[in-house]
Amino acid sequence: MSKYTLGIDFGTLSGRVLLVDIENGREAASEVLEYPHAVIEHELCGKPLERGSAFQNPQDYLDVIYKAVPKLIEAAAIEPTDIVGIGIDFTSSTILPVKKDGTPLCFLPEFCNEPQAYVKLWKHHAAEPQAERITSLLEEKDPERLARYGGRISSEWMFPKILETLEKAPEVYFADDRFIEAGDWIVWQLTGVESRCVSHAGFKALWDSNTGYPTNGFWRELDPRLNGIIGTKIPFEVVPSGARVGGISANVSKRTGLVAGTAVSSAFIDAHASLPACKITDGGKLLLIVGTSTAHIILSNVESSVSGICGVVDGGVIPGKFAYEAGQSAVGDIFDWFVKKCVPADYKAEAEVRGIGIHKLLREKARTYKPGESGLLALDWWNGNRSILQDSSLSGMILGLTLTTRPEEIYRALLEATAFGTLRIIDNFETNGVMIDKLYAAGGIAVKDDFMMQIYADVTGRPIYIAASTQSGALGSAIAGAVAAGAYPDFATAAEAMGGLSDIRYDPIAENQAIYAKLYAEYKRLYEYFGLENDVMKRLKNI
Amino acid sequence: MSKYTLGIDFGTLSGRVLLVDIENGREAASEVLEYPHAVIEHELCGKPLERGSAFQNPQDYLDVIYKAVPKLIEAAAIEPTDIVGIGIDFTSSTILPVKKDGTPLCFLPEFCNEPQAYVKLWKHHAAEPQAERITSLLEEKDPERLARYGGRISSEWMFPKILETLEKAPEVYFADDRFIEAGDWIVWQLTGVESRCVSHAGFKALWDSNTGYPTNGFWRELDPRLNGIIGTKIPFEVVPSGARVGGISANVSKRTGLVAGTAVSSAFIDAHASLPACKITDGGKLLLIVGTSTAHIILSNVESSVSGICGVVDGGVIPGKFAYEAGQSAVGDIFDWFVKKCVPADYKAEAEVRGIGIHKLLREKARTYKPGESGLLALDWWNGNRSILQDSSLSGMILGLTLTTRPEEIYRALLEATAFGTLRIIDNFETNGVMIDKLYAAGGIAVKDDFMMQIYADVTGRPIYIAASTQSGALGSAIAGAVAAGAYPDFATAAEAMGGLSDIRYDPIAENQAIYAKLYAEYKRLYEYFGLENDVMKRLKNI
Repeated sequence: MSKYTLGIDFGTLSGRVLLVDIENGREAASEVLEYPHAVIEHELCGKPLERGSAFQNPQDYLDVIYKAVPKLIEAAAIEPTDIVGIGIDFTSSTILPVKKDGTPLCFLPEFCNEPQAYVKLWKHHAAEPQAERITSLLEEKDPERLARYGGRISSEWMFPKILETLEKAPEVYFADDRFIEAGDWIVWQLTGVESRCVSHAGFKALWDSNTGYPTNGFWRELDPRLNGIIGTKIPFEVVPSGARVGGISANVSKRTGLVAGTAVSSAFIDAHASLPACKITDGGKLLLIVGTSTAHIILSNVESSVSGICGVVDGGVIPGKFAYEAGQSAVGDIFDWFVKKCVPADYKAEAEVRGIGIHKLLREKARTYKPGESGLLALDWWNGNRSILQDSSLSGMILGLTLTTRPEEIYRALLEATAFGTLRIIDNFETNGVMIDKLYAAGGIAVKDDFMMQIYADVTGRPIYIAASTQSGALGSAIAGAVAAGAYPDFATAAEAMGGLSDIRYDPIAENQAIYAKLYAEYKRLYEYFGLENDVMKRLKNI
Repeated sequence: MSKYTLGIDFGTLSGRVLLVDIENGREAASEVLEYPHAVIEHELCGKPLERGSAFQNPQDYLDVIYKAVPKLIEAAAIEPTDIVGIGIDFTSSTILPVKKDGTPLCFLPEFCNEPQAYVKLWKHHAAEPQAERITSLLEEKDPERLARYGGRISSEWMFPKILETLEKAPEVYFADDRFIEAGDWIVWQLTGVESRCVSHAGFKALWDSNTGYPTNGFWRELDPRLNGIIGTKIPFEVVPSGARVGGISANVSKRTGLVAGTAVSSAFIDAHASLPACKITDGGKLLLIVGTSTAHIILSNVESSVSGICGVVDGGVIPGKFAYEAGQSAVGDIFDWFVKKCVPADYKAEAEVRGIGIHKLLREKARTYKPGESGLLALDWWNGNRSILQDSSLSGMILGLTLTTRPEEIYRALLEATAFGTLRIIDNFETNGVMIDKLYAAGGIAVKDDFMMQIYADVTGRPIYIAASTQSGALGSAIAGAVAAGAYPDFATAAEAMGGLSDIRYDPIAENQAIYAKLYAEYKRLYEYFGLENDVMKRLKNI
């Protein structure tokens, strides 16, 4: 009889439960639950929300456990005893205030009308001023720590969101006992054991393996009311990836059918779970998680200070390796923008007649051009630039437009621009001593879009390997579940057995590579000009 | 009984005959004839044409005279004796090789299969290398003359086209007796008298009032076979605007119904004819002829060397004034490109449901934005930059794009970019001593589009007056006909009586003007950067 683990992947709009054979990584069954409350952006309990708000209701996450898990067990027709471990990955930093028994404040009658008592989703962007103040104080007091985060603290992270709560709803701040990442909270709900995983703590809460979190002295200086937060609302202890936090509780067992005591691993950040799924457990291999945005994650034996990255964390993905993350803030989002806002009616009609999607039609047409043929060049900053400029006030640019420019040429230039953006990130890593030999790509776009992946290989001059699974987050979590269950001694062994790559590999085509080298030189010059020399994009936003 | 003149406007695709009351400029009747052969671009007599070719058949112009004129006389039910004068305006430089009796070479059996024997339309662009060689030789031998043309000779002008004929079909060059502008040729056909008008000669054939054409010595140095061209194939004499070249010939009288001996004026360049139609006969008033591209024409009492203009000609539009012309190589063409290539299906559907055009829909939506609100800025170089950079290898650029950018915002940014381009031309004139107080606009877009004209007023900080007539070219020609007939002593008097402006005037709105001043500062900086400092657009075209 096969043995299995469950990987549960909590995304922005849904949770996915994947049943995986621990011997070979075969995906035996899966179940998806769309969050009933989705993303709460405009109004909560009748209260209008400020711009940039993005809340969630933690009940939706519990629904994934209590509805999707039993449904999967039933549909897969397996014995619950054959499920030996469970792993979790979650969007991040997605945090909520809870009582010391784990009850979310928003479940209490006195706080159910207060937005700050709900989950703040990763893309909640209302804590911009708080992030700036934390960045400034770190610059002064702890520049080394700041350097590990590329020199800037994002409003998406844990502490800006907490400070926002303190300032906007102090009664929530003082009534809660803990602020916790939703990933860690779900592990707590499953096991009854509270933990903080290194992945969330390191990448989103400024924790590092040598010094822990910034001290209470630091937080007191930011706001006296924050005094004592470390060690109370945020416990000191942090657990490594793949650690067995505890076993399935009796209560959860009763409600899901899972066997009580089944090993539950510490949580992963969703994007990071794809590394073991792609068998990446050592250095030189950059993983791109290509979606609406792209995350770039790489492991290394050395710790370097790399400007403009999202963070570097000792053991941040798997124990014993430094994990680096960088990112491009819009990728698939740009192509979707283009398709919605810029593609003419006759293209839409042609796609309909042929029964294919607009993206597919545009790629088909764009494919007939040679690199550089259109004369177009774009800067991929439609949603600002995360790495390496860390400037959300930058904007998209395209040049080379003529009266004969066609939509598919622009579409191709946008694809190429995101590839140049990735190469800029690679260059920056290598300049700072983190070398990159091969690329790996996961996510729906990467698996489906051979045209884009070939462009990425040609632009970066590196081979690209593709995740075998379209559910690499959930698969990576299932691998962590297997490690926590002791089915494998470590991630390297587990990933080798359970992870998987597609047979397809994209190798750079020398001829294209030579042309893209010229285009990239132009891209880099404009990157410097609009990123550092001429602040026109910022001034235009301020007019 | 009223007296009339005819204004005959030869455009790119059709000829228009307009009957105008000489007392008040009332347009009594008009008749249009679409050229049966239109523009011959791909194949002539079974021969494939090289890229950039644009030929016409002179028979089409004769059809305007022999078919449209009698039709108009009949339809208007007037006595031919009441038509006292005729004026002509024509696209330029549109030239043909003819025998000394005026017969086009392409009408002769031995040349009817040779493209070079046909009319080369203004937008025939196959003489680029020839234009460069003439520019280089002028730089060396006659820099003062070159300066009057902004420092560069266009391939659209007469001599590059003649040199091309000599090189590609020497048998045509040696068989013809004359090279002549089609406008002058039509006057010759009407009267039997050959003439060269100052407008074509000055703006398109390097003639000036002090030194005439470049000498035969100059042309010999360019190509020994050109020796003697001035004084033979191109006669020395040039006639002023509004001069009576001759009267309608007996033959033309018989075929059209016009009275023999009726005064025929020397020809105008089509865009220039709009000046008297807008009552412009003195300085400080810049006329914009807004169409697919925009021509900027201004009169002055002084001659200055203005970089990047198309030319300055003593008496080039009306006697006694220096006429300056500058231009933007794409204006309406950019908006049309956008509508064809970039407007999504739901906009098209909305326009259809509401029964309005896409341009109108986009302007309606764009109108709801404030200046600067979109954060977008464009460089209007979709067809290169004519004035003031004179660089056809430049291309369009847009920046400020975000995931929320909407089509109407881009459309508005494109309108604004063309306005900034016009302001850059105005600045350049003023820097060189040609001052501009008011703007005038003619052409279909100017008359119809109040939204665009208000943006032009706000951007340039100057009031804009609009031509009353949508046929201002033909009206201006009719005014020239009245001057030639002696109905008025000069253009100033004739234009005052017969020209007309709309009651609508656009005045700058101070609040908008202040914002556009900031945007223009950004535009100018990018204009310098991409025009002069970073040759990325050229390099991209060469890759």
